[in-house]
Amino acid sequence: MPDDRSVYVTPLGGVGEVGKNATLLESRKKLVLIDSGVQFPGPDQLGVDLIIPDFSYILSHREQFLGLVLTHAHEDHIGAVPFFLRQLGVGVDIYGTNITLAMVEAKLRRNRVTEFARFHPIEAGGSLTLGPFEMTLLPIGHSIPDATALRVDTPAGRLFFTGDFKFTTETGELDRGPLRRLGDEGVLALFSDCVRIESPGRTPPERVVYETLDRIIANAPGRVIVATFASHLGRVRQILELAERHKRKVAVAGRGLLTSIDVGIELGYLNPSGSLIVELGDAERMPAREVIILATGSQGEPQAALSRMAVGDHREVRIREGDTVVLSSSPVPGNEESVSRTIDNLFRRGADVIWKAIEQNVHVSGHAAREELGELLDLLRPRYAVPLHGEYRMQVLYRRLAAEHGLDAEHVPFLEIGQSLKLEKGTAKVDGWIPSGSVLVDGVEIGGVDEAVLRDRKQLAADGVVIVSVTMARDTGEILGEPEIAARGVAAEGRVREALDAACHAVDRALRKLDPAELDVGFVHTRVHEVTLSVLRQQANLRPLVLPVVAEV
Amino acid sequence: MPDDRSVYVTPLGGVGEVGKNATLLESRKKLVLIDSGVQFPGPDQLGVDLIIPDFSYILSHREQFLGLVLTHAHEDHIGAVPFFLRQLGVGVDIYGTNITLAMVEAKLRRNRVTEFARFHPIEAGGSLTLGPFEMTLLPIGHSIPDATALRVDTPAGRLFFTGDFKFTTETGELDRGPLRRLGDEGVLALFSDCVRIESPGRTPPERVVYETLDRIIANAPGRVIVATFASHLGRVRQILELAERHKRKVAVAGRGLLTSIDVGIELGYLNPSGSLIVELGDAERMPAREVIILATGSQGEPQAALSRMAVGDHREVRIREGDTVVLSSSPVPGNEESVSRTIDNLFRRGADVIWKAIEQNVHVSGHAAREELGELLDLLRPRYAVPLHGEYRMQVLYRRLAAEHGLDAEHVPFLEIGQSLKLEKGTAKVDGWIPSGSVLVDGVEIGGVDEAVLRDRKQLAADGVVIVSVTMARDTGEILGEPEIAARGVAAEGRVREALDAACHAVDRALRKLDPAELDVGFVHTRVHEVTLSVLRQQANLRPLVLPVVAEV
Repeated sequence: MPDDRSVYVTPLGGVGEVGKNATLLESRKKLVLIDSGVQFPGPDQLGVDLIIPDFSYILSHREQFLGLVLTHAHEDHIGAVPFFLRQLGVGVDIYGTNITLAMVEAKLRRNRVTEFARFHPIEAGGSLTLGPFEMTLLPIGHSIPDATALRVDTPAGRLFFTGDFKFTTETGELDRGPLRRLGDEGVLALFSDCVRIESPGRTPPERVVYETLDRIIANAPGRVIVATFASHLGRVRQILELAERHKRKVAVAGRGLLTSIDVGIELGYLNPSGSLIVELGDAERMPAREVIILATGSQGEPQAALSRMAVGDHREVRIREGDTVVLSSSPVPGNEESVSRTIDNLFRRGADVIWKAIEQNVHVSGHAAREELGELLDLLRPRYAVPLHGEYRMQVLYRRLAAEHGLDAEHVPFLEIGQSLKLEKGTAKVDGWIPSGSVLVDGVEIGGVDEAVLRDRKQLAADGVVIVSVTMARDTGEILGEPEIAARGVAAEGRVREALDAACHAVDRALRKLDPAELDVGFVHTRVHEVTLSVLRQQANLRPLVLPVVAEV
Repeated sequence: MPDDRSVYVTPLGGVGEVGKNATLLESRKKLVLIDSGVQFPGPDQLGVDLIIPDFSYILSHREQFLGLVLTHAHEDHIGAVPFFLRQLGVGVDIYGTNITLAMVEAKLRRNRVTEFARFHPIEAGGSLTLGPFEMTLLPIGHSIPDATALRVDTPAGRLFFTGDFKFTTETGELDRGPLRRLGDEGVLALFSDCVRIESPGRTPPERVVYETLDRIIANAPGRVIVATFASHLGRVRQILELAERHKRKVAVAGRGLLTSIDVGIELGYLNPSGSLIVELGDAERMPAREVIILATGSQGEPQAALSRMAVGDHREVRIREGDTVVLSSSPVPGNEESVSRTIDNLFRRGADVIWKAIEQNVHVSGHAAREELGELLDLLRPRYAVPLHGEYRMQVLYRRLAAEHGLDAEHVPFLEIGQSLKLEKGTAKVDGWIPSGSVLVDGVEIGGVDEAVLRDRKQLAADGVVIVSVTMARDTGEILGEPEIAARGVAAEGRVREALDAACHAVDRALRKLDPAELDVGFVHTRVHEVTLSVLRQQANLRPLVLPVVAEV
């Protein structure tokens, strides 16, 4: 019989990985979900659009679910909200700061999933109570405005979830006072961001980016094109300020930026003077030295504005000699090659390009580096510290860091996705599992794409497909006509062409040797597959996906 | 009429890219090729094993070809030698230092292409004359022993090819004397490595790696497993020395390392004491503190020794608590994710893992950083400097660097693959093209895989394949039986399964509406394709490769 004061914390994502953050709180048979993020597919996940957490535990306990609390509006924290709502299919109370909720709302509109969301904006610093959980959204520094950490008072004690965080905010240093006070009052467990633990020291403040961009814009002989993350409204605000300062107008290229700037203006976070923002078409007719273009595509995403400009494929902006392009970003792991290609192409078109490798301070991370993670441990002095939102090696490094701050290994438990931490009577221990995992989203379909489908896609991608069709008479089993062979994704020349022809003949011979009376579709199918694959392997070292088609007439 | 003293230098690879270095020299109708490297496929080049230069210009001027000169034995400089020999199909004179040729010989044996190679070892510092080209192989620092730069005296003047280089060698600093003397005598054109120009300063010396590994081994509580590039015999030599020093034995895991250690011992480059190297099986029975395992797989290559250990799939070595694993390498761009995964998995098995992100000096690059590239310009004072072996942005940065060293932009020409630099009467200008490009190698087939094949593979990878088969009577045009539909690489559940069934019915209805007398195979094929794709798109947002199979009986 579980104690009435026991609390379970279970990550549904974001441990052992960077991405799809979602953490489930459970106590007194009530459930609250913190964040609902997506992960982007890796190179092996062919054709997959997104990966979302498996929400089946919540789906099978719908009546116990009290609400979704969002720490901030990055995709790896909110990207799965539309899917979650669609799967749940009932009204969901969603809590978060103004900008976070506005960004989610825009996302839901784009995804045409608006009927289930009930938004409850909470001011940074504000509180809410959901069943046994009393929560406060504490302002914290990150690369998106209005980001929060969560203090959660539970029947088992006080928990602290950092969300994604760093100590420097857009305007300066985070006030340590509230955190220190929490520490004085006692924190049972800290659930901490640790993605940047491999970086020593502290993450530099946003100010260095401002100063760097200021210098770049001052020296630019023509237009300045700045690419950054669409959601990084703090960076956008800096650029708007710099534009005013350098008497330039700002034009915006890219749907994501347009959406988030709309949100920023609507909520009063951005206050551009009336004529500061101009249309792209108008900017093209202005003197180059009076223009800044804000663009999406800092990760080399093929469809984004900057990538299109780089290949001469943007409808309104043509890169030219004299342009200065700034990538105010770092490549997200996996995007290095597309970012490099974009930079190369921009240079080819005559632009000057400035990126992190040659100008360190065009971007700073939104995450706390090692020393800051240590500082948080010192401020909060939790009994337990659990690394979240990090790959396994980062969790290991976090445990070592915590040891330096007085926490032994037993007080730094590692959770896996779906594994629960049970908090009770001032202690925490890893305890049991709930259904969980990764759900692949392909187009509109949630799930469906499984390991078998991915295996086929992998083989198709590497070796193509060969189809051998045979027609047989239903009543006599006789093979009618000759087999035909077709190939796609196979280099159908020279030795390979010969091997395909040879396979076709071999199938014909093999089938004719058999007694028609004994043939059935299944057997013919198997035999066609065997013979084809064997000839292709031997003659051309090919291992395509072979698909026999046996038509009965 | 070309001047008898004109010389053409044409890269067949290695410009605008990092990889497949090959540079053609031509003068007085004589051809010499410097290096013959491969490039590894990018994420878009599905199923491609290797990319080699297009050698067709040499193939169509076989009788003018005098020989292949190799600067060092890295894959991006020698990997295409087997393909080059096979395509040329006649005896080829190959020049290089001892270790370089021994590595090539081992490679040719593995590829069973041994009949065409005639090896001519040249000592570092030694010279050779090939028609109008007098060449000296100058020792230079790099991450493989016996690496050389090339001084080439031609009818047009003196050229200098750095190959891949840095100023620090395994034992210390490169002697600048010979380079300075070349500069004093006059260099018409320098062809320079520039891949590391984005890194400021100088590449640290190998000594820092030795000191770091020394410290790690001294403090390791159990076995030390060091993964490094198989060809990095200098690193291997350091590790053998450290093993002696710390009274440990060395066992070797991975075919590539075994091969290159054999080469190193045979040529006297490595001199391990009789009992230093032990079998893996024996090492497993020795006390952990007396063992170092040298392993391949520092790039997370799935089949390599360390990657297998990381997933518990290595036949002889099982990772255990107390093991210290050192990745003495940096991830090559594109390999970041597989390296991260390997590190995570090693940690999961209880090993302590040390890699570049947390211990900077477990590896140093084999390439000169920005300051060294500048120093080389100062030493040689060439009239022209041409950046080779670098992507476009690196060429741009190299041109800027050269400007700081007194060379204006006209004296830093950029070449593209296949584009010739004509050197004549003390000047150089970009002049014309020869047939060139990238040739994709898929299995045993050279070429064959072209853009169309890759496009098909891409679609197959993303969306799978759907086959619709129809049988028609040859004489009447009547459709016999019902169409059948099969899918692979498609999530065949729920909405998708319904869409597939619907497509099948729609095809059936569409064909039955038509007048059999007017049907021919081509028309039926087109109609089946149209109807299937349209239903799948509308009902399930699917865009697979649709392959109609129309059998006539």
